[in-house]
Amino acid sequence: MITKKEETRELEWRVTVPHKPSAQEEHNFEQRFALWHQLIDLLSLNMRSSSRFMKNAWKLGVDDPRKFIHCIKVGLALTLVSIFYYTRPLYQGVGGTAMWAIMTIVVIFEFTVGGTIYKGLNRVMATFIAGMIAVGIHWLASKSSETSEHIIIGVSAFLLSSVATFVRFIPIVKARFDYGILIFILTFNLVAVSGYRVDRLLELAQQRLTTVFIGISICLLVCILVRPVWAGEELHLLTIKNMRKLADSIEESVAEYFRDGEKGDGNETSMQNSRGYKCVLNSKATEESLANLARWEPMHGRFSYLHPWSQYLRVGTAMRYCAYCIETLNVCINSENENQQKAPEHLKKHLSNACLRLGLESSNVLKELASSIESMKRSSSIEVLIGQMNDAVEEVQNILSTPSLEGAESKEAIPTIPLMEAMTVITVASLLNEITLRIDGVADAVEDLAVTAFQSFEDAQQTDKNKPSNELAVGPDGQEGNLPQV
Amino acid sequence: MITKKEETRELEWRVTVPHKPSAQEEHNFEQRFALWHQLIDLLSLNMRSSSRFMKNAWKLGVDDPRKFIHCIKVGLALTLVSIFYYTRPLYQGVGGTAMWAIMTIVVIFEFTVGGTIYKGLNRVMATFIAGMIAVGIHWLASKSSETSEHIIIGVSAFLLSSVATFVRFIPIVKARFDYGILIFILTFNLVAVSGYRVDRLLELAQQRLTTVFIGISICLLVCILVRPVWAGEELHLLTIKNMRKLADSIEESVAEYFRDGEKGDGNETSMQNSRGYKCVLNSKATEESLANLARWEPMHGRFSYLHPWSQYLRVGTAMRYCAYCIETLNVCINSENENQQKAPEHLKKHLSNACLRLGLESSNVLKELASSIESMKRSSSIEVLIGQMNDAVEEVQNILSTPSLEGAESKEAIPTIPLMEAMTVITVASLLNEITLRIDGVADAVEDLAVTAFQSFEDAQQTDKNKPSNELAVGPDGQEGNLPQV
Repeated sequence: MITKKEETRELEWRVTVPHKPSAQEEHNFEQRFALWHQLIDLLSLNMRSSSRFMKNAWKLGVDDPRKFIHCIKVGLALTLVSIFYYTRPLYQGVGGTAMWAIMTIVVIFEFTVGGTIYKGLNRVMATFIAGMIAVGIHWLASKSSETSEHIIIGVSAFLLSSVATFVRFIPIVKARFDYGILIFILTFNLVAVSGYRVDRLLELAQQRLTTVFIGISICLLVCILVRPVWAGEELHLLTIKNMRKLADSIEESVAEYFRDGEKGDGNETSMQNSRGYKCVLNSKATEESLANLARWEPMHGRFSYLHPWSQYLRVGTAMRYCAYCIETLNVCINSENENQQKAPEHLKKHLSNACLRLGLESSNVLKELASSIESMKRSSSIEVLIGQMNDAVEEVQNILSTPSLEGAESKEAIPTIPLMEAMTVITVASLLNEITLRIDGVADAVEDLAVTAFQSFEDAQQTDKNKPSNELAVGPDGQEGNLPQV
Repeated sequence: MITKKEETRELEWRVTVPHKPSAQEEHNFEQRFALWHQLIDLLSLNMRSSSRFMKNAWKLGVDDPRKFIHCIKVGLALTLVSIFYYTRPLYQGVGGTAMWAIMTIVVIFEFTVGGTIYKGLNRVMATFIAGMIAVGIHWLASKSSETSEHIIIGVSAFLLSSVATFVRFIPIVKARFDYGILIFILTFNLVAVSGYRVDRLLELAQQRLTTVFIGISICLLVCILVRPVWAGEELHLLTIKNMRKLADSIEESVAEYFRDGEKGDGNETSMQNSRGYKCVLNSKATEESLANLARWEPMHGRFSYLHPWSQYLRVGTAMRYCAYCIETLNVCINSENENQQKAPEHLKKHLSNACLRLGLESSNVLKELASSIESMKRSSSIEVLIGQMNDAVEEVQNILSTPSLEGAESKEAIPTIPLMEAMTVITVASLLNEITLRIDGVADAVEDLAVTAFQSFEDAQQTDKNKPSNELAVGPDGQEGNLPQV
């Protein structure tokens, strides 16, 4: 069939090509030339856009070299399994069991160790359970007549698949066993619908389990031994990074508003810092998936098995609430900058110092909390810092509470300020106030995290070090350590 | 092996059971009885918690019966493919090709049509492309000596797997072709590592493609014909629902704050309404995944193929910004309720009417926008409603701009109000002001959506109906239709 087609095409060429060019053909030639130009244009456009695409893709890897390493790890695992099966005498090609090992590696290998373990365990357990149930039903069905055998198998496949599909909708099951249930449905149907006898099935099941097991072992070995990426550690670092971003945002936003004279001088980095909160606004999905995967990870680095990862989610939620408020603060500030209606200068100047201090103190609390999470030690100075923050809140409130503001020109000016003009300043102060309340919430969440997670880590560390010096023993509870000079 | 074990167990029983009970044994018996009790307690606890779990799971389905239907659809598709293969004479059991059809259905069948099409197309294309490349490399390798054959295949498998894994990290590729690339890696490795000759490979590939194709066809038929769930429609409805929730939240929050006398009377539903915005805060992930899947869907209902789904994401973002501000507003209101420091009653009362009106007008704009999306017609009254909202903003600003407020007791009181006391009222007014700006943003996004999506829909509708009455022709552009009496 193919050879015939090729022949006709060749014949066409032989007929049309070796002619003397006529006017019509020259026109055609020009047209083709124009088309050719268009094609080149299109290609060069594609080249340019695809080179930009490649550049962006490359940047993705340069920014986080672990992505490059992950790719090499996947290639390595696949090569290992190939070598394993090539060197075995029982190698049977695609139809044989090697297929399941390759499939397992491709499907299971995830970026984080937690992800790989989650999928691996789910796959093994689901394959095992579904296989057992399917063999059981097969055995039951084989005792009856051929018609009822088909009915029993058909009905049970329908029912189990439907029920298992429904279970996948339940949020807590979806978070932890979604992949397992998928594999359950798959394995059950494959085994139930197969026409094999029970003893042949058992043999197949044993083969398949062995191969899946080999695939998972290679996956886990490569995943854990070669530069592992732990979901738990990622979550830990993400929380710290986000908290620092929030701290910078608060400080910079307040400074941006009150450092009025130097506007425009605000350099790029300070602008960038004041927008850092935006990362926190939509962090929920990432945090939840990391926490879900972290649950599967064994002890690693400073994290024990069953480290309270859900507490990180609580910290994340508290930070998000903080970020919502900072977002509003930021937009209030920007909308005033764009509006004609400015706050009265003297009022702003008067509040300036107190508000700048409040911004700084709030930011300090968040930074101290971040450091406390980073070092996995309860901060000894956090109480003092929160106290200072509350002092700053009171200072702002005091200034706003005095009926007439002190200051050279304000004595007579204040009573006649229309509230409208003072609106932004007051809103900024009020939002700062609100932000401090939410920072208290973050501090509470971190305290809970510290009680459940850091205490045992500190204990373990102290037992390990067997008190090399007295300072360490005083550290977390005493009044020394990283207490600032107050 | 197994039978031997069973035998020993049985023997043990025969030895220990038929004794006369001694004191020791009675003690044991009691202990066992206590254990038994504990076991029963544990079981009943488990029963209770699992019955609660079952109840919650059932509620999940009752709240959205499409979930039940989805489960039945999955069962149906699996049954269909089983029947198809049972009735075929070439049925070969699990080892044969039927396996790929079952596997395809289990893995591809998603809740939404878009999800199923996305996975189906990705699977077919990836299987085809990877198969072609793998056969090509095989053919190339088979021309050389056996050692270099293994090296060529091994190196190409390693390289292609690594590169493909890296490509999965690129966000835009991840959103649209993640599953396809997974299948590409899988198929390529299966074919490349297999020991088959090229002609046998082509035969296998053809078989596999046919089976995958059968699986996908059954999936799509069941998915589209039996009560389909369209991702696009879901996104459309979600946007409308979220916008209505925002509208209710604004209205109820403002009313809650200024309707001070009736506090405590605020019934459950109004509390629930004022918290509706919380759904919008974290809607980003859902919206993005729906928009990604909707891209794959063919024309359905009122939505054409290539409906501008990304515009819905813009509307969603605008709504989220609105929600952040409402969140801050809500918490400001609640924190005042908890605080001792109340706003001066007369100031609050004075602002009350204007602010309540502003809340109502803002809410009306959002509701009108939601109706406009729902009916897929550009609203003729939206300009007027936005005008009214802006009037309300000006009214609030005017009240705040007058140096002394009008009113019976306020003439002398205002100049001595400490700013601190007025803080919450002013913040609420300021936030309402900010919310209206963000509603403008939502209106802009909806307008963009209307220009790209609704215009063509309206045109099509008008052509279809061939002007059955004059009213319809006037509808979207004229001053009639759903214009409120102003």
